[in-house]
Amino acid sequence: MQTISPETLLENLSWRYATKKFDPARKISARDWGALERSLTLTPSSYGLQPWRFLIVSDPKVRETLKVASWNQPQITEASHLVVFARRSTLVKADVDKLIHRITEVRGTSASALDGYRSMMLGSVEKTGADHSNWNAKQVYIALGFFLTAAAMLGIDTCPMEGFDAAQYDQILELGETGYSATVVAPAGYRAADDKAASFKKVRYTDADLIQHI
Amino acid sequence: MQTISPETLLENLSWRYATKKFDPARKISARDWGALERSLTLTPSSYGLQPWRFLIVSDPKVRETLKVASWNQPQITEASHLVVFARRSTLVKADVDKLIHRITEVRGTSASALDGYRSMMLGSVEKTGADHSNWNAKQVYIALGFFLTAAAMLGIDTCPMEGFDAAQYDQILELGETGYSATVVAPAGYRAADDKAASFKKVRYTDADLIQHI
Repeated sequence: MQTISPETLLENLSWRYATKKFDPARKISARDWGALERSLTLTPSSYGLQPWRFLIVSDPKVRETLKVASWNQPQITEASHLVVFARRSTLVKADVDKLIHRITEVRGTSASALDGYRSMMLGSVEKTGADHSNWNAKQVYIALGFFLTAAAMLGIDTCPMEGFDAAQYDQILELGETGYSATVVAPAGYRAADDKAASFKKVRYTDADLIQHI
Repeated sequence: MQTISPETLLENLSWRYATKKFDPARKISARDWGALERSLTLTPSSYGLQPWRFLIVSDPKVRETLKVASWNQPQITEASHLVVFARRSTLVKADVDKLIHRITEVRGTSASALDGYRSMMLGSVEKTGADHSNWNAKQVYIALGFFLTAAAMLGIDTCPMEGFDAAQYDQILELGETGYSATVVAPAGYRAADDKAASFKKVRYTDADLIQHI
């Protein structure tokens, strides 16, 4: 495997910023986009349950409607691509059994060999008071992290966004009866040459504030 | 900036897996570790509030105690490094003002020029019924995603873990009065040569299940 140097890693992560203005003329190539989609599905999740769905919205009319539901933030329509990260709204026994089935399919394991694993998952899923919606949302944010870093490695700009009306998104994207709901959004593409925000210094607290060595 | 190819990206992300058995003899170099710490602090967060603290636990005695609070999972003591991702338990006006102050420091902006931004943040932070604990936890999971992908790019193994007693962690790490609480954990290092899990096929649902094009 070809690893990259820590210097290249940091250069790319430092180059990344929440892009305020995308160049609408520049499109992500099919080859790069294929890898970014794969970075989404390669994300790890608790127990491997993958409590998510990634909606890639290309339809300009839908993008326009989503923009209105996002305080009219221009990135929603101007970026090359738009990912809406949706989470499973809940988790039930059927989700556990779906995963068990998929493991047997992919690995050729027998379901009975997975009994212990299944019980462990059921213990978490059926736990009284389990907050599945937030649990799943957190997994979705790992995928967001994967997507943003993967894009930065390829020299592709992104902008993570929470500023949208999730209920309206669910309606526009017809998520209502699917059991999924819009959680976070990321436009991706290329920064406009005149996006002033690109040159702003990144604001971070000091290491003394953020990192503690024990 | 030196970007990487989509093929290299996918090779590294596919190489990554939740390492079950670390080689206790192999340590991450100071140069690589420095970059990984930086990948944590370069993570974006909602409004840039950075509602997190990253605890790097090296003390073997503390690691041993944390292991007991983690169902005795061996990665906690055997990995080269251990990151405990903590979230701010709440968000208050002082967090907003701390950020405003930091922006003026780093960018030389006047605080008054940031009035609109401050009001917007306060609107979110002081919103009735706002669930800061979960909001902050989600931001922490972006940092987890950054850390895991950054490590994979450097050829470093990790294992994201939710299976620990957060209240016990808070006590062991003396987080109680700091306003932070343990959220998720990631040991990092190098897989043991005999970790069978390393050769298991990754189990993922099909693209038809996970990705929807609109």
